[in-house]
Amino acid sequence: MSNSIGEKFRITSFGSSHGKAVGAVVDGCPANLELTAEDIQKELDKRKPGTSNVTTPRKESDEVQILSGIFEGKTDGTPITGVVFNKNQHSKDYSMFKNTPRPSHGDFGWMMKYGNYDYNGGGRGSGRVTIGHVIGGAIAKKLLKTKGIEIISHVTQIGNIKAEKLDFNTIKENIEKNPIRCGDLKAAKEMEEFIISKKEEGDSVGGIVETIAIGVPASLGEPIFERLDGDLARILMNIGAVKGVEIGLGFDVAKHCGSQINDEYQIDNEKITTKTNNSGGIIGGMSNGMPIVSRIAVKPTPSISKCQNSINLERMENEKIEIKGRHDPCICPRVTVVAESSTAIVLADHMIRSGFVHPTNLKP
Amino acid sequence: MSNSIGEKFRITSFGSSHGKAVGAVVDGCPANLELTAEDIQKELDKRKPGTSNVTTPRKESDEVQILSGIFEGKTDGTPITGVVFNKNQHSKDYSMFKNTPRPSHGDFGWMMKYGNYDYNGGGRGSGRVTIGHVIGGAIAKKLLKTKGIEIISHVTQIGNIKAEKLDFNTIKENIEKNPIRCGDLKAAKEMEEFIISKKEEGDSVGGIVETIAIGVPASLGEPIFERLDGDLARILMNIGAVKGVEIGLGFDVAKHCGSQINDEYQIDNEKITTKTNNSGGIIGGMSNGMPIVSRIAVKPTPSISKCQNSINLERMENEKIEIKGRHDPCICPRVTVVAESSTAIVLADHMIRSGFVHPTNLKP
Amino acid sequence: MSNSIGEKFRITSFGSSHGKAVGAVVDGCPANLELTAEDIQKELDKRKPGTSNVTTPRKESDEVQILSGIFEGKTDGTPITGVVFNKNQHSKDYSMFKNTPRPSHGDFGWMMKYGNYDYNGGGRGSGRVTIGHVIGGAIAKKLLKTKGIEIISHVTQIGNIKAEKLDFNTIKENIEKNPIRCGDLKAAKEMEEFIISKKEEGDSVGGIVETIAIGVPASLGEPIFERLDGDLARILMNIGAVKGVEIGLGFDVAKHCGSQINDEYQIDNEKITTKTNNSGGIIGGMSNGMPIVSRIAVKPTPSISKCQNSINLERMENEKIEIKGRHDPCICPRVTVVAESSTAIVLADHMIRSGFVHPTNLKP
Amino acid sequence: MSNSIGEKFRITSFGSSHGKAVGAVVDGCPANLELTAEDIQKELDKRKPGTSNVTTPRKESDEVQILSGIFEGKTDGTPITGVVFNKNQHSKDYSMFKNTPRPSHGDFGWMMKYGNYDYNGGGRGSGRVTIGHVIGGAIAKKLLKTKGIEIISHVTQIGNIKAEKLDFNTIKENIEKNPIRCGDLKAAKEMEEFIISKKEEGDSVGGIVETIAIGVPASLGEPIFERLDGDLARILMNIGAVKGVEIGLGFDVAKHCGSQINDEYQIDNEKITTKTNNSGGIIGGMSNGMPIVSRIAVKPTPSISKCQNSINLERMENEKIEIKGRHDPCICPRVTVVAESSTAIVLADHMIRSGFVHPTNLKP
Repeated sequence: MSNSIGEKFRITSFGSSHGKAVGAVVDGCPANLELTAEDIQKELDKRKPGTSNVTTPRKESDEVQILSGIFEGKTDGTPITGVVFNKNQHSKDYSMFKNTPRPSHGDFGWMMKYGNYDYNGGGRGSGRVTIGHVIGGAIAKKLLKTKGIEIISHVTQIGNIKAEKLDFNTIKENIEKNPIRCGDLKAAKEMEEFIISKKEEGDSVGGIVETIAIGVPASLGEPIFERLDGDLARILMNIGAVKGVEIGLGFDVAKHCGSQINDEYQIDNEKITTKTNNSGGIIGGMSNGMPIVSRIAVKPTPSISKCQNSINLERMENEKIEIKGRHDPCICPRVTVVAESSTAIVLADHMIRSGFVHPTNLKP
Repeated sequence: MSNSIGEKFRITSFGSSHGKAVGAVVDGCPANLELTAEDIQKELDKRKPGTSNVTTPRKESDEVQILSGIFEGKTDGTPITGVVFNKNQHSKDYSMFKNTPRPSHGDFGWMMKYGNYDYNGGGRGSGRVTIGHVIGGAIAKKLLKTKGIEIISHVTQIGNIKAEKLDFNTIKENIEKNPIRCGDLKAAKEMEEFIISKKEEGDSVGGIVETIAIGVPASLGEPIFERLDGDLARILMNIGAVKGVEIGLGFDVAKHCGSQINDEYQIDNEKITTKTNNSGGIIGGMSNGMPIVSRIAVKPTPSISKCQNSINLERMENEKIEIKGRHDPCICPRVTVVAESSTAIVLADHMIRSGFVHPTNLKP
Repeated sequence: MSNSIGEKFRITSFGSSHGKAVGAVVDGCPANLELTAEDIQKELDKRKPGTSNVTTPRKESDEVQILSGIFEGKTDGTPITGVVFNKNQHSKDYSMFKNTPRPSHGDFGWMMKYGNYDYNGGGRGSGRVTIGHVIGGAIAKKLLKTKGIEIISHVTQIGNIKAEKLDFNTIKENIEKNPIRCGDLKAAKEMEEFIISKKEEGDSVGGIVETIAIGVPASLGEPIFERLDGDLARILMNIGAVKGVEIGLGFDVAKHCGSQINDEYQIDNEKITTKTNNSGGIIGGMSNGMPIVSRIAVKPTPSISKCQNSINLERMENEKIEIKGRHDPCICPRVTVVAESSTAIVLADHMIRSGFVHPTNLKP
Repeated sequence: MSNSIGEKFRITSFGSSHGKAVGAVVDGCPANLELTAEDIQKELDKRKPGTSNVTTPRKESDEVQILSGIFEGKTDGTPITGVVFNKNQHSKDYSMFKNTPRPSHGDFGWMMKYGNYDYNGGGRGSGRVTIGHVIGGAIAKKLLKTKGIEIISHVTQIGNIKAEKLDFNTIKENIEKNPIRCGDLKAAKEMEEFIISKKEEGDSVGGIVETIAIGVPASLGEPIFERLDGDLARILMNIGAVKGVEIGLGFDVAKHCGSQINDEYQIDNEKITTKTNNSGGIIGGMSNGMPIVSRIAVKPTPSISKCQNSINLERMENEKIEIKGRHDPCICPRVTVVAESSTAIVLADHMIRSGFVHPTNLKP
């Protein structure tokens, strides 16, 4: 039971890179939300490969079909099934990895755990599986929008190149203007060049993706063990390639004193806010009404064409490996869509759980 | 249903700082594990306040009683209930916080969410509630030990003072020799002095706690949504004061290329290992047999005696606040025990879930 | 994780017949419900043994203590822990059952499953464990009352003696007037005599317990797999000694045609009702606003003093057994309280899940 | 989150009668189980309508496709998605039910709960949705077969016509020889005639379906709240039209004394059995190694062509209704397949949970 997430708004994901289809069943979306395939397609198009020279040249049309859950253009409270049939798969590229796990790639775990592993294109360990996340996230985002919540994810760092801090609306506008999905257009240009230079070396690069959610009411999240920060950390860390998650100041808190970073409350136009937002919108596991800010550390794509050491599991011998295929030199731009979707899924779930969204019917 | 965690090995935590008791029910521990109250007491004593000048001067005896789940010295597969009755509580210290949330302290969320908040000592938002985690963790650690798994947590940074990297056994030995629970004795001394200096200023300091688990078999963790790294990130982020979680290299991956940090496999004495452990023992959401290494960012205790700005929720006015009470100037040393316990709970749960520990009986 | 039930209103039960205590943690009760130990004690007193000649002569004071979850006389949204410390236990009565499972008693399963079984008084398989159900049920009933929902359970059959059909209020009044908790006072007298006659023979008798809940709004229950009837069937079948559950007409539907038993709708004083209630208040897995009526088949207490055939598990030989102890000749009167509690737990859970009760705060 | 069931072997069902498709995602089936679409198709064909004069004349081809979860002819531990695209739907038949709930049909609840209800063919409340159950059940049955467990469901009563008690193999053979799926061929003939006579009157009839599982090891089931009988009762009661569930003697226990129906243990050829099986294979919530026997009460199909009283929800007025469409005069024969599937799902889940089946890999 490892392919589902969420308590009230719940995604069950299925499918693999080179199987017939990938998709998700979304259970628990209240009835009467207007929803079309286009709402989902729009988000899927953002993670689609083959759109620039910083992603894999694989062309995937990734057309989503909705098989259930919509009646007369609106959700009807029953499970929504979104599916994308796989089309442009080259299984020949992968047979040499059957018994040879790729360094820092998930396939070793799959081989050990299940004994029957679809090694083609990473099977269910493939990034392609995040199509299920995006299907869930697109619905979650539409639901959250009815309550005034908006979410964006953007790249803030690639290698040592860091984006400047910018306001929500500038980021939102700029990420659509560059293939990196970075809010700082100047940094984006440098990042693009850096990625291409590494790609030409047969190498890959890592980075950082930040997600900001605005309009979230105070008190979302359920202490002690289903806190909002815990649930966000889980879903974000569950994204392949992510090795760290932080909220607000994150790891920088280690260096500071309480007097420097405590977020002081103030009444501002009859609204409660904090003067600073070092907490990233979450204190004590619950939202405080300020923007929710998380960052994830995304490792360089493990699939590189440089020669690497590995082993042959059948012969239990050391073995060299070169990973040809068509891989993203930097996964960060595409991860933004997955981080945004994942954040939306958690927020939608907690909005229902905390009573801000009616559990079965948006128009009761 | 926010006070339980774990699927097969499941902790349900209860109690508050100034109520009658705190404790936990541990459901799903297989039968035939030898277990006494001392096994739990030993761990609780590590998080006990009042033992040094870097923690709160509150003296709490924190004696655990086991109310259920043990028959003839061994677990019998029924829920194990551990409870600590509260004794040394000063409720008078807290009345002024009834309507005035403390900056960066969880109480604002509790007030908003529940409307009836036990503001004494932080109520259920108090660090005292982690006694439940430690009860669960002590049992999990005993269970894991039967399979050769050992876990330690230690402080690696306070403010800008960083500990040197040391091997598992040295750290294990040294953390018992200093109140910081730092493996590097020289750094520990500096950290202690730094904490005391800040305490004297009425301030508090943050830091980083690392947890290492050795002996974990490969393939623990359930992709896609109940991965080992995701579950660790959640339970660790759920600890009060934690603002970041990383696995292996963590946020450092952003700066690196794949060729620099990929962990290459090798056959070493008929055993599969990786030459490096930048992945921190987890790839693709599953363990790979290498030590599992996580780090958490712990913010400075928000309760400081310096004057701060806040608001009065009843009068909806700005209001100044000074938090007297008896607070830890640095929570990191005590968080080590909670991080260790939390990690143990997740590992015990996944050891059962993945079939490495029989779900009902250790001696079938 | 088998000792918890409920999604939003969730009971975690612990303890055994001859251990230190039995009790339950109730998680998910919204804040601001007035609650005292007396509210729970009142319900516990109904299941207390030793109060009449139709139950076991064991005297158990069964005094509940609340360890957590109440602040200033009201729930505060944190887990409520109720505990009853065991007092009047005779462990000597049970040693002969260590390796000899009692016919139709649960102990065989416990021995097989866990290998370390507290055979004293049935251990965790004892009816005494339903104290946890009643703690949860008492809180659930108090919560439901704020929404106008009332529940009663009563004995409708013992052996071949059947109670007449009576209205809700008559039953409610009469069950307090006789030790059988039967609404029909004449039948109650006969039942009592029948039970005593069987008790004198060293035998036991079975019966049927009906539960009626009034005031439940339409549309509770979540199809397809968490339907209201399914959830009621589960919790009721989980009660020891129950071998059947039916809703409305129950097994009688087999003999009827659709035209005879379909419940026709009508508008009655601007309210939607059905002319008959053969569905027992639930259609398609959801409540329809009519009284919810369930019945359970309760088997005769398996512990009888007559000589029976069994086996010795250690020697793997046939062996005779005589069960002395102090047992209820008929468990039905005490089961009424457990059925009522179990029904209340399910209804409280679904009232929150369906949005009729706010999930965290009764007075938002 | 109401469309999933099972903890380790988990079905998520989706789709509706007149939408694009119905199906299920099965998560948690261990890898290395041989599985083809034919394994599922074979079971679906048993519930297919239009095959005799006692079921609806609707012809549905119901061809299942597997979209994920199989690699090289075997399960690979990833979610298995089975889908049946809808074809022969007549939406015109249903428009008059938009605001007029059918007596004893689930549609009233759907209208009240979700506000946007696909009234065509019952939408998600349709029996057609049990295709998802059968997809899950077919996989569960295949998994159970590897451990020697076999399950059959058969009709034991229609109206007042009862089948004789017969042994497992005779029933298994005979149910394939008659459209009623009754083990007693003589009774089957009478049942068939009775159903046809009622069909001609525009009426419908109820009945009883029994399920027997053989080969189940002792100790399946998790007390206190996830007992085997409780879990079976829930999944069986969740089937539309079911109003009662009993295990073993069921409601007959009410009339008996303990000395009459206790199941005495015996050593028989070094195997532990009971002399009788009045418990129906489950005591104390756990299997005891004897055949597991359950019975469900199935109400007459509520959709009848006779004129009935109902209401118009929009106008809030009384209104007459005649349900034309193409309905089963007796749903029992088709319910057998759903009962068998549901039982298989629960047993497969508990076989994994109790450690009898490895959670991730059948050939570790």
